[in-house]
Amino acid sequence: MAGKDLPVSPLALPLPEMPPVAGVRLGSGRAEIRYKAREDVTMMVFPAGTSVAGVFTKNKCPGAPIDWCRAALKGGKARALVVTAGNSNVFTGKAGRQTCSDTAKAMAELAGCKPNEVFLASTGVIGEKLPTEKLVAALPPLFGKLDDNGWAGAASAIMTTDTFPKGATRTAQIGDTTVTVSGIAKGSGMIAPDMATMLCFLATDAKVPAAALQAILAKGSQKSFNCVTVDSDTSTSDTVLLFATGSAKHKRVPAEGGPVLKDFTRAVHEVLMDLALMVARDGEGAQKLIRIDVTGAVSNKSAHRIAMCIANSPLVKTAIAGEDANWGRIVMAVGKAGEPADRDLLSVGIGGTWMAREGGVVPGYDETPVIAHMKGREVEIAVDLALGRGKATAWTCDLTHGYIDINGAYRS
Amino acid sequence: MAGKDLPVSPLALPLPEMPPVAGVRLGSGRAEIRYKAREDVTMMVFPAGTSVAGVFTKNKCPGAPIDWCRAALKGGKARALVVTAGNSNVFTGKAGRQTCSDTAKAMAELAGCKPNEVFLASTGVIGEKLPTEKLVAALPPLFGKLDDNGWAGAASAIMTTDTFPKGATRTAQIGDTTVTVSGIAKGSGMIAPDMATMLCFLATDAKVPAAALQAILAKGSQKSFNCVTVDSDTSTSDTVLLFATGSAKHKRVPAEGGPVLKDFTRAVHEVLMDLALMVARDGEGAQKLIRIDVTGAVSNKSAHRIAMCIANSPLVKTAIAGEDANWGRIVMAVGKAGEPADRDLLSVGIGGTWMAREGGVVPGYDETPVIAHMKGREVEIAVDLALGRGKATAWTCDLTHGYIDINGAYRS
Repeated sequence: MAGKDLPVSPLALPLPEMPPVAGVRLGSGRAEIRYKAREDVTMMVFPAGTSVAGVFTKNKCPGAPIDWCRAALKGGKARALVVTAGNSNVFTGKAGRQTCSDTAKAMAELAGCKPNEVFLASTGVIGEKLPTEKLVAALPPLFGKLDDNGWAGAASAIMTTDTFPKGATRTAQIGDTTVTVSGIAKGSGMIAPDMATMLCFLATDAKVPAAALQAILAKGSQKSFNCVTVDSDTSTSDTVLLFATGSAKHKRVPAEGGPVLKDFTRAVHEVLMDLALMVARDGEGAQKLIRIDVTGAVSNKSAHRIAMCIANSPLVKTAIAGEDANWGRIVMAVGKAGEPADRDLLSVGIGGTWMAREGGVVPGYDETPVIAHMKGREVEIAVDLALGRGKATAWTCDLTHGYIDINGAYRS
Repeated sequence: MAGKDLPVSPLALPLPEMPPVAGVRLGSGRAEIRYKAREDVTMMVFPAGTSVAGVFTKNKCPGAPIDWCRAALKGGKARALVVTAGNSNVFTGKAGRQTCSDTAKAMAELAGCKPNEVFLASTGVIGEKLPTEKLVAALPPLFGKLDDNGWAGAASAIMTTDTFPKGATRTAQIGDTTVTVSGIAKGSGMIAPDMATMLCFLATDAKVPAAALQAILAKGSQKSFNCVTVDSDTSTSDTVLLFATGSAKHKRVPAEGGPVLKDFTRAVHEVLMDLALMVARDGEGAQKLIRIDVTGAVSNKSAHRIAMCIANSPLVKTAIAGEDANWGRIVMAVGKAGEPADRDLLSVGIGGTWMAREGGVVPGYDETPVIAHMKGREVEIAVDLALGRGKATAWTCDLTHGYIDINGAYRS
């Protein structure tokens, strides 16, 4: 089940150079919670004054760390983050809550802050008690070796069934000052909207009030992670956190944000989108990345639902795995979404070739260029409903034997 | 893609002895629409006075035969049914509509009735024009050889990726008279609620007014086919039709039905349930039949949504394929449904063993009996929410390499 046992996704991208983010000290180490031969605990420490924003799973059975973060987020301040891989601390009852408070207390003592300024996230098996003492014992040695350059190690230490580490970075201007926005993510299965990744952590040296930060993160997550699905299954642990250390010296940002954050917002959204697409690229068993563009819907929301319905259709995803230009299944998925659609106006295309137009196959339709497109690593599906101006894009991967292999024996 | 090329499902049941239904003459033959080496067209002919009820897909891009049947159903009378396998006549535009009217007209001439007393259904590839002339030419020879005993042949001739023919029969008392209710179904993939089969045809010799017949069929479909899912994909062609020839001599049934139809209703619902479970047993790639009982929900509707959400979860279905008692994935699926659920009250069991109770693993939980249960062909999942009295049951099959094999190369 550890990523190292699986072949690397053919869609993998190399981890970019991850520069330091002023104010962020981080590192990773071993707690041997489940994995014995790799790093499984990650720590970030932030200076006083760091603001934080968060977006969490909408699953109604969230893990204990989700409850912890939701409560801590009310303060809007963060001084540390502790992430574990291998055990999600979900459905662990009172013991799970105790693990969170014990971990936060131990981390707070090291960082010299309050427990509710410590953020927690865990990913892995559900329903097994997390060995708190091992985790707490691993914190002091890890704290002792933190530095500015731990991003690559952290990107690896948070992985579970991921086959490659995921990171992205951008710079942005706030007034005349250049700030950095960097992020890492993990996620490969149990990936669906609300949220589409299990864990994603961003940090910036910008000084942005928590309310403005939250608005930027929420909108960016909606446009990125919530448009990506691997298997329609919504994790109990999905977490995106954005920490702003305020170490950069730029003009003051008002509480409500505003135009001064325009470029910063762009950078955050680009990092989120990069990471979300890496999650789709590392979808369990993925051989192809699929982009679905829906246009002509009655609204953007309707277009989003249709795009996600296509992205979640096992029949569409297996057809693409088989490089079969079976556009009938796309028609089926459009109809299944339950959104306004008129069969006789519908058009469907793959790879820039319209196969069906206005309710029927295009006269003289030649499948050759479509088949050639489908043999590639990236497949583009276009659907036009010809009803209105609503549009949306979703991303997913194909459904292959690899998904069955990985998930039929996850715990074995 | 023809069922004969696939190994028979290990969950297959033998076709029961299908006795004649008074008034129904039926048979099957070859039109070579797509399959060249098997029967692919099925015909039933009914006497004057036959009433009909129908339930159809809620997919917004339905096939031309669905539109045809919805219009014909308004008359409440039926004299014939023509079913083709191999081409679904979906997304075929004006040509598809013409195929329907040409077929109905040809059939009506043979049967001596009006075209709108002819019902049509097609299953198979989407988006390819159905060769009407081949179909129409096949009708007269088939009409010439109809008899009372064609049920088994018909059950085979309507199959596509099915690996075994599906039929069920019951008798019922209306007053002092015994009537017969028989049905056949096909369906294996693109199976999801609203409706959960592609095609299902029932006939009875009872004399039941169309309105009462429709009420019985609608309720029975809700409790059977709409509780079964294979892959969450809703077909564009799902059809259930129930024909009542009125050949039996029993006391008059009032238009609104009522107590006199109690036993008849039971028989219809039992036939529907038998057939729905056969569809799950023949789910593409199925190795195990899965039953999911949800209790303690806030309402029956909420329980149904949760049960179907578990039944549609790829992670739950792959875990069962791998005989992995990964109850954490069941917790995830409960939470993903979005229905009221309290993690700390939730209980999850498999095969009669409660694994998790009130938000945590059962103390001293021994996985042995659960693993033994999961090695069998039928797996039972129980979820109790401890919130109310709502309950529901859903059925599905596991998600295996077979599903990928079948659907990655359906058209090849």
